[in-house]
Parts: sequence; structure tokens; C-alpha cells
Amino acid sequence: MTQELPPDVIAQLTGLGRAITPDLVQTTWALLTPFHEKVGYTAPKIHRDLKYGDHPRHRLDVHTAGEQATATPAPVFVFVHGGGFVGGDKTQPGSPAYDHIGAWAVRNGWVGVTITYRLAPDHTWPAGAQDVAAAVDWIRENIAGYGGDPARIVVAGHSAGCVHVASYLTGQGGGSLDGVRGAGLLSGFYHIPDEGRGELERTYYADAPSETISTLPGLLETDIPLIFAVADRDPEFSHYQVARLTEAWFARKQSVPQVIWSDGHNHVSQIGSIGVDDLALGAQLARFVERVTEA
Amino acid sequence: MTQELPPDVIAQLTGLGRAITPDLVQTTWALLTPFHEKVGYTAPKIHRDLKYGDHPRHRLDVHTAGEQATATPAPVFVFVHGGGFVGGDKTQPGSPAYDHIGAWAVRNGWVGVTITYRLAPDHTWPAGAQDVAAAVDWIRENIAGYGGDPARIVVAGHSAGCVHVASYLTGQGGGSLDGVRGAGLLSGFYHIPDEGRGELERTYYADAPSETISTLPGLLETDIPLIFAVADRDPEFSHYQVARLTEAWFARKQSVPQVIWSDGHNHVSQIGSIGVDDLALGAQLARFVERVTEA
Repeated sequence: MTQELPPDVIAQLTGLGRAITPDLVQTTWALLTPFHEKVGYTAPKIHRDLKYGDHPRHRLDVHTAGEQATATPAPVFVFVHGGGFVGGDKTQPGSPAYDHIGAWAVRNGWVGVTITYRLAPDHTWPAGAQDVAAAVDWIRENIAGYGGDPARIVVAGHSAGCVHVASYLTGQGGGSLDGVRGAGLLSGFYHIPDEGRGELERTYYADAPSETISTLPGLLETDIPLIFAVADRDPEFSHYQVARLTEAWFARKQSVPQVIWSDGHNHVSQIGSIGVDDLALGAQLARFVERVTEA
Repeated sequence: MTQELPPDVIAQLTGLGRAITPDLVQTTWALLTPFHEKVGYTAPKIHRDLKYGDHPRHRLDVHTAGEQATATPAPVFVFVHGGGFVGGDKTQPGSPAYDHIGAWAVRNGWVGVTITYRLAPDHTWPAGAQDVAAAVDWIRENIAGYGGDPARIVVAGHSAGCVHVASYLTGQGGGSLDGVRGAGLLSGFYHIPDEGRGELERTYYADAPSETISTLPGLLETDIPLIFAVADRDPEFSHYQVARLTEAWFARKQSVPQVIWSDGHNHVSQIGSIGVDDLALGAQLARFVERVTEA
């Protein structure tokens, strides 16, 4: 069944505007949580805090159907949270975030993995990409034990998590791309200018030059299928990224990239819409995962 | 219930490629028709060939729920077919096209209107826009008698029909925009260069200069909500239009336009997907119509 939010709730989310403030984050989740509670936002079995490295934040959760798991290894959907390079977690007490993505993955017949990674300012570029690479290494080695297929992995990230996934895909964090069949790049950025970096970008990238850290050139060359998303009320910088991506993609490929427009949503409710507002992002993303992981 | 096409059918549609040949048209409809027959592609009551002007092609069909119509006047969804300026019709014997769009509109609780218009070479720019304007005039005057709300009209066009709708919206055909609450611009074009026009564009536009006939500047200024679409396997020219639109829209509005990516579809199956592959276009388009026609 297609999950939808009532139009008045979407209108409220739209009305919160484009600036990512603590108030927007709090109000957005307050609006969404009752709908997640109705649908259910925890998978039947969650294996918590498995370690994929030495740092305390090298942890991931594996979301599965538990006893209902099928005999055929399932596609694996990996989610990398946002938080401006300096915050965020795979789980937030009292919030559906981001167990709801694991639950949604399991409802789609996949294994879900939500990861946490090291943060700036202690850990700067390319630490995020290195951690995504390490998590995918762990998944490739271990996920069969949870019913997942190590040869059918899709990695998605939101906001700063999207930036880390793009950075991983383009080799900035090292590691292997074996088994990665596609990636979802959700409201992040790919071109990081030298001038005009915000405080969070300066914290993570310091003075590393644009040509070293921008992932756009690498994304244009990768063979891994990509799906992008932008929220209706995403900040201008996210929209700028889509404009620039579209221009560069067309110049390189004579086609435009697949960009999902999360209608009516803000930066936070876009990812919060997964599982409760299918048309905003989830249904298109699921179709992409099904297509690229087809056996 | 969300209608979907089997992945192998979508893969066949994708595999037909980007060039709009007679073979692509025929094969696409042959693949889609069995699914339309299963869903049902005719509304309960179709009022055929109502005249909205003097020319034999000034005809429209009104699709309604018949006896099941509700007391509250319903939103009106108007569809303008494609055909390269020189062909096409609102109905094609033995094919779901484009009754399927009327049926889909009625299933959504709206009144559907499918129109035919004059063709080049006998009728050149801005005849198409004039005819869309005349049809909307007729609708505004008469649709209440069919259960439609003349103050809640959404006009959508595909391919050459999209070009005519854009032309109408930007005033090239005269007429009124009263009651038009939104428009769907599906795989058409908005910037018509002076150089390099194809045969069909030359037939319709002759030598009219780009600055006179391009609708992009006008679309950037209109207050009418717009939704755009592009098909995965649309010709390069359609993708170029989205790239150019996105760039200009961002420069003007500091955001990117809402563009639906019709995943896996070609130019013809994009519009043929309505009613049988909701995620390709129909569900997003319906959400847009619901939003802009909200009382």
C-alpha cells in the first residue's frame, strides 16, 4: 500500500522553509513521528552496534526480517546519515531516525544497514569516505550471515552522509567498490567551491582545494548507477548543486541525471518521508534499488 | 492501488532507444496496451467530439464518471496530445491513446478533457496555442454542465502538445488564463533555437525568430505552478531542454524546477505509462493536480 501524508502536514513541512535550523529539525520530526509510529519504524530484528572499526563511532546496525528472512540472499541497502560533518547518529533515542530506513528496507525485502562514522573537527576529510569504505568492507565480509547478498549492495547517504558516499564512490576514501550496484545521493553536494565555504565545510575540509575534494568530475565518470534527490524546500546550496550537476551531466552524457524532486518537503522531512510519504522519495528510490540489484 | 509494469516490460521499453520512429511508437503501444486493457482505459461516460471552434479539428472529448459524479464540481484535467505539430489525435482507434488519460483523470475524481487542434503545415505558429486557448475558453463556459469546476483547471501537454501549452501559458495564442491552476509540461521544449531546427520545427515555426517563439522567458515569470517531465530515453533534445530550463530557473529563482524523471521510459511510453505505471509519471502528476486544485 502506498503511504501518504495528509496534505495539511505536507503544507506545514513546506512552510518551515529552507534554512536548516534546530527548530526546523525538531518541528519536522514532531510532525512526522506519529505517522512513523502508525506504520512501525523498527524492523523485526535489529542487530545493534556491530563494530566495523576501532573508533567508537565505527558502528553499524543491521536491520532484518528475523525469522521471516528468505533463503535467497537479499539486496543490502546501506544508509549514511547527515549532520553537517559534526553531528548525527544512526539512531536517535525517541525518534524514528534512522531506524525507519532500516524498517523500510526490510519491508521492501532487503537487509538494511545504518552506519555511524567519525566526525569533524577531530576527523577531517577524507575520514567520512574512509569510514563508508570500511563499513562496506565489513558488509561485504559479514552480511551473508544476516541474509544479505554481498554482491548486491546499494549505498545511500543524506546531506553530509551523501557527501561521504559521493567521496567514497570517487575513491577519496580508498577501499573497494566490489558489490556496490548503485548509490543514492540525497540532498548533498558534489562541487565544493574554494570561496564561500560555510563554517561546517571549513571544519571538515579546511583549506583543501576544490579540485581535490569535489566529487562531481568523478561522479560523471563512474559506471555505478546513481540516483539523486533534492527537496522542494532544500537550501539554495542544494538546488545549486542540482543545477550544476545537471549542466555537467548533460555536457558529458547528452542526458540529464535521474533527480527525484521531494515534493513539498524540506531538507529534513525529505529523509523523514521514507516509509510515510512514498511519493516524496521512497517509492522512486525503491524502484531504483530493485532495478540495479536485479539478479 | 499503485499500478506497476513488470520490470521486463520496462526493460523492453527502455531498450527501444531514444529516436522517435514509427516502429518505436507501434512497439511501445503494443507493449502497453494489454496492461491498459486490464486496468480499463475508458471512463464510464465519454462525451465525444464536442466542438470548441469552427475547424474540423476543434474537437474535444469530456470524460466523466457518469451517474457516479459527485455533487461538488471536480477539478478539470485537460490533455493536449503530441504528434510533431503535423499529426496525432485525441483518440486513436484500437489504441488506449489518449482515452487512457481521461479514464485516469476520472479515477482520480476529476473531469478529464482530451483535445485535438489544428496542424501544420496548413496551420502554423501560433495556431496550436490559439487552439489550446479556445479549448480552455470552451471548458470555462461549459464544463460545469459535466460536473467540472471552471475555476480549477490544470492543462497538460505532451511533446508538441506540451509546446502548445507552454505557448498558451506565455500568451502567444492570446486568450485567458482564468481558472488555470497549474500546468504539466511533459517532454516538450521551451527554447527553440534559430539554427538547427528540425524539419517539424521548420514546418510549424517557419523562420519565426527564437526570441519570438521561445517560451522559456515567459515560463520563468508566470505565477501558474508548473510541473515538468522528461523520459529516461527521451531524445537528446528533450534532455537539453531540461538542462537549459534547470539552469535558467535556478538563475531566476534560486531553486530548480520540479521535473519528473520517467524512469525506464521512452518518449512515447512516458505518456503511455499513465494509468499502468504510476511511479513513472502519473502518481506525481496526480499529486501536483491535487495540490494546485485544492479548494
